[in-house]
Amino acid sequence: MTTPPPTPPAPRVTIKEVAARAGVSKGAVSLAFNHKPGLSEATRDRIFAAARELGWAPNLTARSLAGRRVDVVGLAICRPAKLLGLEPFYMEFIAGVESVLTERSCSLLLRLVRNLEEEVGLQDAWWRGKQVSGSILVDFHADDPRTAAVRRLGMPVVAVGHPSLTGGLTSVWTDDATAVTEAVRYLAALGHRRIARVGGAAALGHTSIRTAAFDEAARALAPDGAWQVSTDFSGEAGARATRSLLSASGGDRPTAIVYDNDIMAVAGLSVAAEMGLSVPEDVSLLAWDDSQLCRLTRPTLSAMSHDVHGFGAEVARTLFGVIRGEGSAGSHPVPTPVLTPRGSTAPPRVSRTGVRSP
Amino acid sequence: MTTPPPTPPAPRVTIKEVAARAGVSKGAVSLAFNHKPGLSEATRDRIFAAARELGWAPNLTARSLAGRRVDVVGLAICRPAKLLGLEPFYMEFIAGVESVLTERSCSLLLRLVRNLEEEVGLQDAWWRGKQVSGSILVDFHADDPRTAAVRRLGMPVVAVGHPSLTGGLTSVWTDDATAVTEAVRYLAALGHRRIARVGGAAALGHTSIRTAAFDEAARALAPDGAWQVSTDFSGEAGARATRSLLSASGGDRPTAIVYDNDIMAVAGLSVAAEMGLSVPEDVSLLAWDDSQLCRLTRPTLSAMSHDVHGFGAEVARTLFGVIRGEGSAGSHPVPTPVLTPRGSTAPPRVSRTGVRSP
Repeated sequence: MTTPPPTPPAPRVTIKEVAARAGVSKGAVSLAFNHKPGLSEATRDRIFAAARELGWAPNLTARSLAGRRVDVVGLAICRPAKLLGLEPFYMEFIAGVESVLTERSCSLLLRLVRNLEEEVGLQDAWWRGKQVSGSILVDFHADDPRTAAVRRLGMPVVAVGHPSLTGGLTSVWTDDATAVTEAVRYLAALGHRRIARVGGAAALGHTSIRTAAFDEAARALAPDGAWQVSTDFSGEAGARATRSLLSASGGDRPTAIVYDNDIMAVAGLSVAAEMGLSVPEDVSLLAWDDSQLCRLTRPTLSAMSHDVHGFGAEVARTLFGVIRGEGSAGSHPVPTPVLTPRGSTAPPRVSRTGVRSP
Repeated sequence: MTTPPPTPPAPRVTIKEVAARAGVSKGAVSLAFNHKPGLSEATRDRIFAAARELGWAPNLTARSLAGRRVDVVGLAICRPAKLLGLEPFYMEFIAGVESVLTERSCSLLLRLVRNLEEEVGLQDAWWRGKQVSGSILVDFHADDPRTAAVRRLGMPVVAVGHPSLTGGLTSVWTDDATAVTEAVRYLAALGHRRIARVGGAAALGHTSIRTAAFDEAARALAPDGAWQVSTDFSGEAGARATRSLLSASGGDRPTAIVYDNDIMAVAGLSVAAEMGLSVPEDVSLLAWDDSQLCRLTRPTLSAMSHDVHGFGAEVARTLFGVIRGEGSAGSHPVPTPVLTPRGSTAPPRVSRTGVRSP
């Protein structure tokens, strides 16, 4: 095999040119790319834009020689690899994180872990090994061991989860309780009195929050029946749960089902068709997250819509703030998911409650 | 805010215990985790299994002190963040890569880049900065600048792409030409004589390979009409392409459409319904990759099925081989996508060619 002759490297754009274009000093460019405090958000944005336009990236070797890496942030996810690949949420979330990282010449160090103890060890090793300048922590459990561990390390992190779960760490979160209540209220307003929820993994904190909120809302608003099922978020589990809910006879069957993500709602739609039930005439389905999938089905899926990409971007921006030592203990809610009604929700067929059977 | 008292670290499992459980020496455990040659695949697997069972991971600080990091591999993807989040292929591919990395206590350094020149600079910085022990290169173009660049660096990489595109680098690839030909042959055997393909991004090498193969197969097997459209792989672009193809009147309209991924085929199904066309009676649709989506639609989608998770895992395993200095210039085909017929393909309605219009 012959090796092609080496091509000479292209002439490099310099930090001086980036500084000139942004109208700042070289020192300011360096501050921005090393995520140091002292610049306004507007100046930083101008510097990143200038670097992007000129195709300039800082010399990573020099950055690493100064000590800790400043161009890598960590993310460990505790989900089986097989399921991760099937969950649109995480891909959109990661893409949103990357959209902010890439404009600051940063990379994401990604790792699947089997349990939270493994993640504690990993974050410890990443931080002590100077592999990351900070981490994004996701999927909080009650009494999550990561909170104390990262505090002990003094490691900059952003916790993705409700403040009640994240023990005072800087957090970015969505108001799941309000959104679940909103979903149940909408279905009740349509006339549904038997409502089910196909939820996510029971061990997760945000699942518990949704479960409690559904419980409370359904007690008031679904007087003829309320059901909740836990799953692993996969389409297969969503199909099984839907099949089980819809297999009950008439009056013991929900007329509306809320799902904890959108892939399970797509699966639910397919199960309804398989069982000869029309959506939304026989059963209304309401998805969550609202990736493009919900607009591609027949009927289209009503959903509690959530800008997952923007959520990931906000988490990354917040982490840079923590790394710079700003706003180190805040709680940042992102917009609450809002209802997007489409073709899969409608009033139920006329209720037979209190009416003689035909 | 009060900080909770520090909890003492849990006692750590030692390398000695891992070695004992695997029935090897401590040196062998070290060889395995540092990806050095000298161990059989079976021994390595036993060591990784023992470490996993005991919850042991190597001390990353010690590993990094020895010089180059051995626990990180790089992956840069040149797709807009907005589109990446919508493409099931990459999420399943990354999950497959992670499934192998995680059992060897390795992480993936992930970065979105805007163009190949940016990736060349990034790989250079990752390698010289000792941030990665090797990289996975994806989405090859014709005359791809990365080939010469990584050769010049002497960097261990695995190229995901056909050997005709990857310039002698160790490659893992699927035989796209054979699979496209197979797809066209199947549709022709059903009786289709007007066949279209909704392809991926035109600049990508594997898209060109599929385009050429479709061209050749359709010339022989679709005598009444053949169409090809390029897209960006998104559901929206797939919907637009399908709408345009199906808007032609009867005889100028394809009776079967092959898609380059599955999200576009799901979108095509939705467009057919919107236009009042039945699938498969009026038009047959054939997806590619075959994520779980294809089994969740109505009708279910026939697909050229491809174990994308297994593909990612094979790429990661091959990269470890290259890092260990084994099989450094091989070409590793993974199984060719095979046809999985489901509900979206059938013979066309009786052809009216040569028959008087009713």
